Amino acid sequence: MGSERSYQMKVVTGEFGYVLQDVPHFSDYIPDLPTYPNPLRSNPAYSVVKQYFVDMDDSVPEKIVVHKDTPRGVHFRRAGPRQKVYFPSDEVHACIVTCGGLCPGLNTVIREIVHSLDYMYGVNKVLGIDGGYRGFYAKNTITLTPKIVNDIHKRGGTILGTSRGGHDTLKIVDSIQDRGINQVYIIGGDGTLKGAAVIYEEIRKRGLKVAVAGIPKTIDNDIPVIDRSFGFDTAVEEAQRAINAAHVEAESAENGIGVVKLMGRYSGFIAMHATLASRDVDCCLIPESPFYLEGKGGLFEYMEKRLKENGHMVIVIAEGAAQELLTAKNEEDASGNKLLQDVGLWISQKIKEHFAKQNKIPITLKYIDPTYMIRAIPSNASDNVYCTLLAQSAVHGAMAGYTGFTSGLVNGRHTCIPFNRITEKQNKVVITDRMWARLLSSTNQPSFLKVNKLTGENSGNTENQPEMK
Amino acid sequence: MGSERSYQMKVVTGEFGYVLQDVPHFSDYIPDLPTYPNPLRSNPAYSVVKQYFVDMDDSVPEKIVVHKDTPRGVHFRRAGPRQKVYFPSDEVHACIVTCGGLCPGLNTVIREIVHSLDYMYGVNKVLGIDGGYRGFYAKNTITLTPKIVNDIHKRGGTILGTSRGGHDTLKIVDSIQDRGINQVYIIGGDGTLKGAAVIYEEIRKRGLKVAVAGIPKTIDNDIPVIDRSFGFDTAVEEAQRAINAAHVEAESAENGIGVVKLMGRYSGFIAMHATLASRDVDCCLIPESPFYLEGKGGLFEYMEKRLKENGHMVIVIAEGAAQELLTAKNEEDASGNKLLQDVGLWISQKIKEHFAKQNKIPITLKYIDPTYMIRAIPSNASDNVYCTLLAQSAVHGAMAGYTGFTSGLVNGRHTCIPFNRITEKQNKVVITDRMWARLLSSTNQPSFLKVNKLTGENSGNTENQPEMK
Amino acid sequence: MGSERSYQMKVVTGEFGYVLQDVPHFSDYIPDLPTYPNPLRSNPAYSVVKQYFVDMDDSVPEKIVVHKDTPRGVHFRRAGPRQKVYFPSDEVHACIVTCGGLCPGLNTVIREIVHSLDYMYGVNKVLGIDGGYRGFYAKNTITLTPKIVNDIHKRGGTILGTSRGGHDTLKIVDSIQDRGINQVYIIGGDGTLKGAAVIYEEIRKRGLKVAVAGIPKTIDNDIPVIDRSFGFDTAVEEAQRAINAAHVEAESAENGIGVVKLMGRYSGFIAMHATLASRDVDCCLIPESPFYLEGKGGLFEYMEKRLKENGHMVIVIAEGAAQELLTAKNEEDASGNKLLQDVGLWISQKIKEHFAKQNKIPITLKYIDPTYMIRAIPSNASDNVYCTLLAQSAVHGAMAGYTGFTSGLVNGRHTCIPFNRITEKQNKVVITDRMWARLLSSTNQPSFLKVNKLTGENSGNTENQPEMK
Amino acid sequence: MGSERSYQMKVVTGEFGYVLQDVPHFSDYIPDLPTYPNPLRSNPAYSVVKQYFVDMDDSVPEKIVVHKDTPRGVHFRRAGPRQKVYFPSDEVHACIVTCGGLCPGLNTVIREIVHSLDYMYGVNKVLGIDGGYRGFYAKNTITLTPKIVNDIHKRGGTILGTSRGGHDTLKIVDSIQDRGINQVYIIGGDGTLKGAAVIYEEIRKRGLKVAVAGIPKTIDNDIPVIDRSFGFDTAVEEAQRAINAAHVEAESAENGIGVVKLMGRYSGFIAMHATLASRDVDCCLIPESPFYLEGKGGLFEYMEKRLKENGHMVIVIAEGAAQELLTAKNEEDASGNKLLQDVGLWISQKIKEHFAKQNKIPITLKYIDPTYMIRAIPSNASDNVYCTLLAQSAVHGAMAGYTGFTSGLVNGRHTCIPFNRITEKQNKVVITDRMWARLLSSTNQPSFLKVNKLTGENSGNTENQPEMK
Repeated sequence: MGSERSYQMKVVTGEFGYVLQDVPHFSDYIPDLPTYPNPLRSNPAYSVVKQYFVDMDDSVPEKIVVHKDTPRGVHFRRAGPRQKVYFPSDEVHACIVTCGGLCPGLNTVIREIVHSLDYMYGVNKVLGIDGGYRGFYAKNTITLTPKIVNDIHKRGGTILGTSRGGHDTLKIVDSIQDRGINQVYIIGGDGTLKGAAVIYEEIRKRGLKVAVAGIPKTIDNDIPVIDRSFGFDTAVEEAQRAINAAHVEAESAENGIGVVKLMGRYSGFIAMHATLASRDVDCCLIPESPFYLEGKGGLFEYMEKRLKENGHMVIVIAEGAAQELLTAKNEEDASGNKLLQDVGLWISQKIKEHFAKQNKIPITLKYIDPTYMIRAIPSNASDNVYCTLLAQSAVHGAMAGYTGFTSGLVNGRHTCIPFNRITEKQNKVVITDRMWARLLSSTNQPSFLKVNKLTGENSGNTENQPEMK
Repeated sequence: MGSERSYQMKVVTGEFGYVLQDVPHFSDYIPDLPTYPNPLRSNPAYSVVKQYFVDMDDSVPEKIVVHKDTPRGVHFRRAGPRQKVYFPSDEVHACIVTCGGLCPGLNTVIREIVHSLDYMYGVNKVLGIDGGYRGFYAKNTITLTPKIVNDIHKRGGTILGTSRGGHDTLKIVDSIQDRGINQVYIIGGDGTLKGAAVIYEEIRKRGLKVAVAGIPKTIDNDIPVIDRSFGFDTAVEEAQRAINAAHVEAESAENGIGVVKLMGRYSGFIAMHATLASRDVDCCLIPESPFYLEGKGGLFEYMEKRLKENGHMVIVIAEGAAQELLTAKNEEDASGNKLLQDVGLWISQKIKEHFAKQNKIPITLKYIDPTYMIRAIPSNASDNVYCTLLAQSAVHGAMAGYTGFTSGLVNGRHTCIPFNRITEKQNKVVITDRMWARLLSSTNQPSFLKVNKLTGENSGNTENQPEMK
Repeated sequence: MGSERSYQMKVVTGEFGYVLQDVPHFSDYIPDLPTYPNPLRSNPAYSVVKQYFVDMDDSVPEKIVVHKDTPRGVHFRRAGPRQKVYFPSDEVHACIVTCGGLCPGLNTVIREIVHSLDYMYGVNKVLGIDGGYRGFYAKNTITLTPKIVNDIHKRGGTILGTSRGGHDTLKIVDSIQDRGINQVYIIGGDGTLKGAAVIYEEIRKRGLKVAVAGIPKTIDNDIPVIDRSFGFDTAVEEAQRAINAAHVEAESAENGIGVVKLMGRYSGFIAMHATLASRDVDCCLIPESPFYLEGKGGLFEYMEKRLKENGHMVIVIAEGAAQELLTAKNEEDASGNKLLQDVGLWISQKIKEHFAKQNKIPITLKYIDPTYMIRAIPSNASDNVYCTLLAQSAVHGAMAGYTGFTSGLVNGRHTCIPFNRITEKQNKVVITDRMWARLLSSTNQPSFLKVNKLTGENSGNTENQPEMK
Repeated sequence: MGSERSYQMKVVTGEFGYVLQDVPHFSDYIPDLPTYPNPLRSNPAYSVVKQYFVDMDDSVPEKIVVHKDTPRGVHFRRAGPRQKVYFPSDEVHACIVTCGGLCPGLNTVIREIVHSLDYMYGVNKVLGIDGGYRGFYAKNTITLTPKIVNDIHKRGGTILGTSRGGHDTLKIVDSIQDRGINQVYIIGGDGTLKGAAVIYEEIRKRGLKVAVAGIPKTIDNDIPVIDRSFGFDTAVEEAQRAINAAHVEAESAENGIGVVKLMGRYSGFIAMHATLASRDVDCCLIPESPFYLEGKGGLFEYMEKRLKENGHMVIVIAEGAAQELLTAKNEEDASGNKLLQDVGLWISQKIKEHFAKQNKIPITLKYIDPTYMIRAIPSNASDNVYCTLLAQSAVHGAMAGYTGFTSGLVNGRHTCIPFNRITEKQNKVVITDRMWARLLSSTNQPSFLKVNKLTGENSGNTENQPEMK
């Protein structure tokens, strides 16, 4: 895929170290395409706006904590409407697909793509692909109109249905060609966007004038470059409810322990933010910060101390935490107890065993797994506005002839980002950064330093990691 | 106050147009102050963090939508802990005061200042000033400990009480001196921070080693420079509830009209964001966009059209909208009907009168004013985290010897901002910008262009206005 | 209407003082009607149920606080399915109308009537009358199917629309006859049910086999005989939110006063229950308990005392309270200030005036009117179940040939109640009863006894008033 | 315990089959006790109330669905204040204990006992026993004052802590005697109240003037005689949220299945009510209605049909359902997989296995266990008022010299009920009754009749079961 990768990014340089990591455009591989005046010119809503169209040269820096002599570094293309579009309205045939797990805001994004296409650009041929990628070739489509999607943002889930996997590049691109689709909006996470990149590349190989625009989705907030993923605020809010419940249960029992498992397969952002927001948590365990149970500086020692001091405690654990410990266990035990796969059940069991043996403290442990209650709620007001702007940016980009890009918020500005920057690695909590120190300071939990070697990607210069808020 | 103003900003310049608008520091007016190693060095929570301390040269640009040849422009000092502090922990005597109207998150800010001082810096002398500025000289103080403030973030309002006005610089500074206070944390809006600037100047005049740190508060989001004010997300969420209710009422009646008044004395951010988030609004009226009732292109014409098409409609009006119309009315009517002061009651009355006369459509109008239900709720998870970081930034700044500054989020990074930049003007919805165009497009309301002359501050280059989400 | 009134109640007597106030039946005025076996017999859901059909003789006593020698008193017919029905399923043509103000649960009742008719009785001709009574002759109807109403219980308001008045008996009955409707479900309050009684009487006069069934609706809970009206629990829950907000506002200001106006035109049940549930209220003012402002034992004296003790207070006032004072004022002032019509604005003004004069305490008053936010929310789980059973009882009754009745919960049992018992008077808070004493005890407010003469209806024996919970 | 049992109930008979199942009183076993006028006489809040005191002869019938010739049957003593009390206020030394699992409303009951004792009776010696029954002899007590408990009703859980078991009658009564306690308020479920009965009997044996009053607590609503248990409404409301989430997850996947486990060890009331309230459930499985998985009429057959028709489904299962199936499994498998104890995990596993084998439909199953999120929330407004009245009834009863009773709502009236009536059996969903038929009708699930033999307690005459709403 080496040379194909280069399809996905065009680099422009400028003064004082300025670098623009640009996104592909139809004109990169199709010569002499006609352009059309942007129909927004005649839209009354936009007639009041001066300089409504985004300047072709607008860009947004990736790193903004700078010194007076720092070179300017990487920039992304600013999203927004352009003077010229590459599709006449009546020729656009768009489709939308949602892939992967649920996340608050999916319906809002769908709604806003449909509304933006119709109200801004007069496009009224929009198909919903049913049930994720495999819906391109295996299922019926759903006709999407502004009326059909009008109230869907008040419901959780996705009206299009979703699934994991099912990606068959050739069949998908065949289906796109067969149906005459020329704008493909793909909402999904890491894997989905890797798939979108390959779809874009195949389309480019075939020389098709089909825009592929991604909208990054991950409830875990583990997508790099962007400030935060949509639905994250909503998820943290709801996670707080589970922590509150665990706190009440723990407080009401002698040596009560509340354990809450939160989402976060590879990154602990939800766990970290919910802990910082709630302030009722005594220990937050995330994938990025390995820990150990027994011995000095271990979890059990801390728990005994905490129970002695306070009489109760709350532990938040991200679903991807402690995988080293779980794997080790699995190797020893050939029977493969499935219970161990769920880190929440696993740690609850471990804690119970520890305190049961050797005249230890009698505990009362309550375990809460709010995962599906969090994923399924409708997005809150803040995420609604955010989803609206993400959708509009994707539509503006596709209409302007850009392709092979995702829309994304970078330092508070909406931008177009090349796929490979979004999928090249996962965003993680940097445990050598201050946000994690804030958490440690708020919970007073140990740093489990014996294990943490502080090597590899976690030890890099993190000064430019977005502070989230 | 001309020369004093210069106290508040120090300017540093650098390459390629770099400008740092720095904040005052004790060393600006007190020579030879001793410094101490930051006690965070020995805090276990921070021991894992590499490069924990903020580099002295870190700064954050104000404008980040740039071209490849744009000069670098204004920057602010990055907030965060420094290697050296200017107070030994046991010499710090801090106080906190909250002023002005309620806003979700006040208690979280108070809590986090107390916790940051104690857990990070070992400071345990913190006073709460009771009831706003006048509490400095007229009331008893409240001793604040981590235990006392532990759960207050779950409650709305401010445990310190608040009031408007009551600012008497000399008496306040006398009181600060008399009590031996050397860190003053002031949470308040525009007027409050102007007061804080004067207090800082008086303190500087007297040559006192007393840090004055502000945390900008405004539910209206009308403070310039910063990305958004704390509590704003929470307020918009709650405002959506009122809009939903208005929508249900309107839908259930023949020619039902729901009118919702939202906060926004000089700026319509809450109204605009709640409208964009809810999508059930047919017309959003804000102070920045003057409108008229009668005649072609006026509100009544639009309402008649909307009712004919849909059978019902929802109007959101910011409290500061239509002041020109209200003032005019007042001039004509010497009796000064107080009812007219409330723009929600006024417009409801006007609408009823209009539709009552001349065989017009029989309407059912329901008016909702959720103001105090919005202001009084506790902050949501996202605002909780935001308030935490604002408080910590203020504490880090004061400990490091900075004074005469507010903490504030600039393009997603926490910074120290000189008072005058925060108070020099109000942040307003720029109605020639795309955010407002998005709203117009979503409601389909008229632009009331006949009145809008698009002059003055609204017509400036707005490309760098934060997009909020 | 004297003799007509007798249409509405048939009395059966039994041993030991037993009296049954029965409801009308087709067989009362149409001889020799055929009956049919209840189709529920073959419904799999009901096949497990022994004695599924309600015994013809089942009845429920109105008064159940008894002594060992108390005569048995008035009873109502128990609601529920009967062995025989008077309509074959395919001959039923039902209609539903909603009248008056919004109330949580309207959509649930509509949904459940449609579902009950279809799933239990195989009836699929159901019309929705649009916009209240006048919809019978002035508007189009809405076809209601189980699919159309499937999710409406999750929304507030009424999908049928509603209006006040518009009752024209002859035109309505003509419309019923013209359309071939033979089951009329009327959801509404006092006035609506009086209208329903007249419609029933006209139908009876014409000798039509048309069942008229009412479902009593009043957010104020002012309907007599029944335990409580649907939506009441939901309304009290939401009212508590407003009280919480008022409490936060009051607490945060010096001499802060929060005033909350709640629904209750003639009865203060919502105000009383919200006060008892919330416990943050210092004074609850309701129509049933006249009060006065000035002088010894008056409201202002109490307020001064309370502010001195506590520094803040919350007042809840029902919309119908203080009408004597408002009327008196109106008589004196010929100009008729409309502001005075709203008791919440009126009392806020009076309080401000009082404390403004004569060096009184400087207060901060915040006024909250949550009325339309309360009315418009969807019903909570408890009300959902309640609405379901009310709707089913009405359907069972109509299918069994009963007419001129409302369904209603009496002492926890579902019954059929003659219209005149529902409309003959309003249910009121009995201020000489213990529930009000509980409130006085919880708020410590004065009893305003100088005014209360304790005469008339309030002074009766109240031992049998339902305790509500 | 035969003769002791008789301590708990005194029977009075009257005309026409009247039976009063009375509760014990000090005068039953202590002669010549002095009485005192009720201090409420001089309480201003009660001065307006006519006939404030409950008539000594007031009683409430247990069965109220009657025929005109039905004998009057069993009655309970009405709760409420009496003319005379058996304690002078300054001699009362009360204690409160909470036992068993959490339930919304515990703190409200505690608060209201303390407030009632203080504000109504001038009693200010109230102890909280820490951590359930064992707190009587093993732990420190908590002094309870009106101020301390003032806001606790806004929090979930119990401020007193709770535990299971720990009942040692002699040590508890010794502790009561040693501390000089003469009023014991016990809040707990079935087992707790059996313990309370034994405590009462031991106290009576010792001839102590110590009142033992119970307040029945069970989130499962499985306590007989009473209309419903406190916290039940709140629990059903919250359970609906989990069902909604399951519905969204199921709808968004192809052949999506949402499984929600709800509380209900022996009775399925929460599952049944949440199903009826939500209407998004396709199958509700409760302990009272045994079911089977395989074969004709079994769960899997129904699931296949449902998925084919709808593409998704939601199953609600009470924690005590399917115990026969689980037990059978355990007997076969000696290794005793603990996972099987959780019926939600068990059925999820069974469903996955079923659909995985033999080219069955590929499903996506999401399992939600909201138990601890439901238990831990604060009570809603309706439960708040209910808890208040339960607490007041207990206090009135104890002050009036009654003992060995629980307060409880019977047919909407507050009564005093002998312990043995509360503990003699469990309240269960009667699956031959109409409420369950309503559920079957709403879900369309099979009745699993092959298994249901309709014998035993479920087959009795159920006409008098409370209809709950």
